[in-house]
Amino acid sequence: MLSAGHYQILSTLSREGSKSRTELSQLLSVSKATISGLVRDLLDQGILCEQELVFGVGRPSVSLAVRADAAWFIGISMQDDPVVLVLTDLHGTVHARLELPRLTNTDDCVAALADTVHRLRQTVGATKDRLSGIGIALPGFVSRDRRTCVACTALGWRNINIGSAMAELTGLPTWVENDAKALILGEELFGPLRGSPDFSMVFVSHGIGCAHIVNGRLLWGNSGGAGEISHAPVTIEGADALPCRCGNKGCLETVASLLAISNSARRQGLPEGAHELTALATNGNLEAVAILHRAGSAMGLATAQLIQMLDPSHVVVMLDTSLRNGVYGHALLHEAESHTLHRAGTRTMIHFRDFKPDSFAKGAASLAARYFIFGHDDV
Amino acid sequence: MLSAGHYQILSTLSREGSKSRTELSQLLSVSKATISGLVRDLLDQGILCEQELVFGVGRPSVSLAVRADAAWFIGISMQDDPVVLVLTDLHGTVHARLELPRLTNTDDCVAALADTVHRLRQTVGATKDRLSGIGIALPGFVSRDRRTCVACTALGWRNINIGSAMAELTGLPTWVENDAKALILGEELFGPLRGSPDFSMVFVSHGIGCAHIVNGRLLWGNSGGAGEISHAPVTIEGADALPCRCGNKGCLETVASLLAISNSARRQGLPEGAHELTALATNGNLEAVAILHRAGSAMGLATAQLIQMLDPSHVVVMLDTSLRNGVYGHALLHEAESHTLHRAGTRTMIHFRDFKPDSFAKGAASLAARYFIFGHDDV
Repeated sequence: MLSAGHYQILSTLSREGSKSRTELSQLLSVSKATISGLVRDLLDQGILCEQELVFGVGRPSVSLAVRADAAWFIGISMQDDPVVLVLTDLHGTVHARLELPRLTNTDDCVAALADTVHRLRQTVGATKDRLSGIGIALPGFVSRDRRTCVACTALGWRNINIGSAMAELTGLPTWVENDAKALILGEELFGPLRGSPDFSMVFVSHGIGCAHIVNGRLLWGNSGGAGEISHAPVTIEGADALPCRCGNKGCLETVASLLAISNSARRQGLPEGAHELTALATNGNLEAVAILHRAGSAMGLATAQLIQMLDPSHVVVMLDTSLRNGVYGHALLHEAESHTLHRAGTRTMIHFRDFKPDSFAKGAASLAARYFIFGHDDV
Repeated sequence: MLSAGHYQILSTLSREGSKSRTELSQLLSVSKATISGLVRDLLDQGILCEQELVFGVGRPSVSLAVRADAAWFIGISMQDDPVVLVLTDLHGTVHARLELPRLTNTDDCVAALADTVHRLRQTVGATKDRLSGIGIALPGFVSRDRRTCVACTALGWRNINIGSAMAELTGLPTWVENDAKALILGEELFGPLRGSPDFSMVFVSHGIGCAHIVNGRLLWGNSGGAGEISHAPVTIEGADALPCRCGNKGCLETVASLLAISNSARRQGLPEGAHELTALATNGNLEAVAILHRAGSAMGLATAQLIQMLDPSHVVVMLDTSLRNGVYGHALLHEAESHTLHRAGTRTMIHFRDFKPDSFAKGAASLAARYFIFGHDDV
């Protein structure tokens, strides 16, 4: 059992990289003797390791770091079919990966997942007792305690306590989270924007997902719906507002998602894939340009609304490589930047990043890693 | 000087209403002896008072409450011209009110404000030494330390340290805040939604303002721009997007604000006031209906975007009484509700409230009251 002091050291080293005992003592305003005692425990338990000597003023000191293999975690993404499972270490690095078909029957699903977790566990050999927890990301609403899937259209689930079912079958604590929220929590813990207090992430896939970190914490909202921009309205004029699967009209998803793009392309007898459509547009096919321009512009408009509403330091947009480099990406940036109020010295950075299905599984694994590092799962 | 323990008692009683010593001891997990000591100090200093006996199990106990006249605060709203100054007590109640013309020259402005503060101070007679601080709300961007107006178009100010200037001239600590943020902070401290962790406020005036409380804290964003929905784009189609004073086109403000409504009305030879225009619309004037319907719909669309993005428990929309009860209000509600993703048991409540210029001044005063109650101004 680790104490609050142990967790303070572990989380500081995980957040800020390796530090000497003296630096930790100064950073945490705790005596060096106390730090040394706590560090000794963490070394004994194989959670920290001593690294190279650091030469500065006075005696050279030894820098301490979090051992990557101190704990293992499993992340499961049910964001798409097939389901992706990854095994990650305490630095967030993926060591193994498996796929399986996405099953909607809960019992079958949990049994198949537990079986795959067991197979992944074997890959870590002698340190398999260091497997510390499981995270599951899914495209739906999840209870605040990260146990129950409250509603998921893709899986047809309502109030399924998948977390407890998995924990029971595997003996490992299990956290469940919405896919976009798992993604941003992974970024906040291990990604390039780690520790940034105010940023948002959007992904463009079959549907569109979004989540925000504000004031250093995940924005959950009143009922877990924060970030649901997929169904935000993007047009005031009723005429071209397309009906959406949610029952409304004019939702962002009906224009800017991969599904919307392929629907539009099919209606006009064009190839439905983003890659082929972008290639056509690049070669000057006007219909292809129009579809991608409209989709990218709508996404840019939504990004501008996000920026005006929340003023994040960064918005990371994850999307298909071909979308990012073609008309869609250009229209997105143009629309987002031209509809944002600019003030000197203040500008939200918009980053594109390639859409990788594994990102959701890594984000899911970070839920369990966060608990290991901080001793609680409150974000 | 109050200690952390004193502030804990003061803020608990202010947040939750009167409590007995026993209840405080249970709520704060502190021994009754410690509570009694701290309460004695606060009674001696005239900050708390003893109220009626409470009969329950065991000996009847005395309930404690925060004395309204324990401290006075001045709130200044520069949101509009004239400037409104109010004197409030520790319950947030207004006891006196003065107006003066809004001056843009900083020296003249500060001198006039300080003079008016002095006159308000006289109204509290013998307890004038209990005047504890000043808050200023203005329609612009403010530094994070609540001292400096970074940019305000209406006043033509850039990097004006109005907080320090006022503090120097009056001898009172002074906090400066953006108008919408002051408004929501007043609501969070003394209003009907006091203590709610996730809600938003929007006001429709000459322009449009907005601010959010998320996870129990004010959403500031990366550079203080969170809530700037006034310049959020509301239409994807370029054709009817009107140019905005910010340099962009299609901003919410160009359609839904009082200024936009009166501009549209003037162009069509109709009366420019919201009241007269709504009366015309009620009597079936199609042009008046169209202007107000479009304006209210745009505001409703922005409200839906806000709800999808943040999932607040409540959105309070402050607007003119005639707008609220006419086409504008109906179109707003219709558009907001039809563009929000509904799930069973989860619904953001949209409340209308009359637009009162004094609300901003009360919000401003709450900045100083918050410091008195919590011992810090971190929200």
